[in-house]
Amino acid sequence: MSAVLLAVDWGTSSLRAALIDAHGQVQDTREFAQGILHVPQGEFAKVFQHRLGDWMQAPERLCLISGMAGSRQGWQEAPYCPCPAGFEDLSTRLHWIEPRIALVPGLHCTHQKTLDADRIGPGQDDVMRGEEVQIFGALSITGLSQATVVLPGTHSKWAQVRDSRVQRFQTFMTGELFALLSQHSILARTLVTDAPWDEAAFVHAVQQAQTGPGPLAHVFGTRTSALFERLPAAALTSHLSGLLIGEELRATRDMPDPLLLVGNSTLSARYALALRALGRSCTVLTHEATWAGLASLARNLNPPVIHHER
Amino acid sequence: MSAVLLAVDWGTSSLRAALIDAHGQVQDTREFAQGILHVPQGEFAKVFQHRLGDWMQAPERLCLISGMAGSRQGWQEAPYCPCPAGFEDLSTRLHWIEPRIALVPGLHCTHQKTLDADRIGPGQDDVMRGEEVQIFGALSITGLSQATVVLPGTHSKWAQVRDSRVQRFQTFMTGELFALLSQHSILARTLVTDAPWDEAAFVHAVQQAQTGPGPLAHVFGTRTSALFERLPAAALTSHLSGLLIGEELRATRDMPDPLLLVGNSTLSARYALALRALGRSCTVLTHEATWAGLASLARNLNPPVIHHER
Repeated sequence: MSAVLLAVDWGTSSLRAALIDAHGQVQDTREFAQGILHVPQGEFAKVFQHRLGDWMQAPERLCLISGMAGSRQGWQEAPYCPCPAGFEDLSTRLHWIEPRIALVPGLHCTHQKTLDADRIGPGQDDVMRGEEVQIFGALSITGLSQATVVLPGTHSKWAQVRDSRVQRFQTFMTGELFALLSQHSILARTLVTDAPWDEAAFVHAVQQAQTGPGPLAHVFGTRTSALFERLPAAALTSHLSGLLIGEELRATRDMPDPLLLVGNSTLSARYALALRALGRSCTVLTHEATWAGLASLARNLNPPVIHHER
Repeated sequence: MSAVLLAVDWGTSSLRAALIDAHGQVQDTREFAQGILHVPQGEFAKVFQHRLGDWMQAPERLCLISGMAGSRQGWQEAPYCPCPAGFEDLSTRLHWIEPRIALVPGLHCTHQKTLDADRIGPGQDDVMRGEEVQIFGALSITGLSQATVVLPGTHSKWAQVRDSRVQRFQTFMTGELFALLSQHSILARTLVTDAPWDEAAFVHAVQQAQTGPGPLAHVFGTRTSALFERLPAAALTSHLSGLLIGEELRATRDMPDPLLLVGNSTLSARYALALRALGRSCTVLTHEATWAGLASLARNLNPPVIHHER
């Protein structure tokens, strides 16, 4: 069967694409290390044509692009869609840049202020681009309309879904902080970055992060643990990873089940292990969620390019 | 009156020295940007002689050296003194490296485990080198035997003193994390590092850090605040500083008064402002605490080189 949708996930560091048929099946995929940071301003159309032009020659085929390609630094800026937001909100706000090519908007939410009005200051905004498609894909795959969707990464996202709509979400700098601390901090001299993964050290650190004086102190403890040889140098990277992921799980412990975890398999495995150590279970989905999300969006177009399955 | 003590604070980035007379008065000081990181291994005696040799020509004069010069990477390793520790513990554990020159030991404490014994893992150690002298100096200046002594910095220390002894202390990576995030993170592109200090943005961030989803999320909010222009770019550095110092104050809010703050005047002013915004008061001491601490140690030697004042 001929593909009706070219689904594209164009993020900061990579460009990934899938051809999807009218039943939502992925027929073929491509991946390039050409994220938006590697595309000079004004050359997005050219790069798209070079990488995926042949896949747009079928005259009826549509293309939906999610991710940072829709940001101010991307192809064009697709304005954020405010939360609460569902499938339909995204599909009515697609940002068409050519007759058959649309950018999917990201999501924006504003966190409630917790301070007195007389101490008012800047509100807390949060944004995502690309993860919204994975969230709706995960809901589509699992058939859930209520869930907490967790998207681990450089900037991890925790989204709360009710009535099939993203009500709100929260970003955590966990992955970026891990990289910064591993590479540039006082810990960098001690960490053995290519050491094998140490599950026991990781799990212990996850548990340690649930109580006590918080991450600014716990992370320093990684250094003293090395100094006093309480932990072998080879275990320190796993320990640091556990402290930071543990802090993220501490901050999100009140977010309701069921948990859907969407991400690359290595990172998802760590989060699943950490959640299990804290007595929580989760369902793990991989990049299939991206393609399912973009297919769901295409299904909501009028006329739909992908048939609803009976 | 002739100086009886050469007091030296030899840290990671600088070498500072003071001549102190028999009444504990500072007669003269020197400072060099030659911390232990800038001294090749094996050349500490040579650097000391070059910088301070003339101040050791008086035959009866003693020299006490605190700080990282007593670490494994320093002149010689002066083994840590375990907590609880008082003046006397330090003075009986001075590490004499020449007949008239001693290194002051740092302090070590082990935090109680908060986990079940069957989940046992590495304990939480903590260490300081140099701050112990400032703590005892602050007690000597104020006449207090019970206090929480706060030493803001790259690695901030909070020490709990009871019965004139340091019972325990906790280190926070606040200053280092601020530097890492300002220089290397996604925030680095947005921050205006030479912007003037914005007290209102700082205080608001301190308050924001007291509640909500913790620093991994709050710090990411600095980026989105910039994106949505809730905060002028010039205020972001003050905001980030407030979030991190605020997190440190959140983690230490149960530490008992009175608070003694010992540090450089810029950083102490920020901490004092943050504490005031949270309804806490503190007494601020500057580097005088170092000289007072080393003088107190000299006073406890047998025979004392500095007289007890009547």
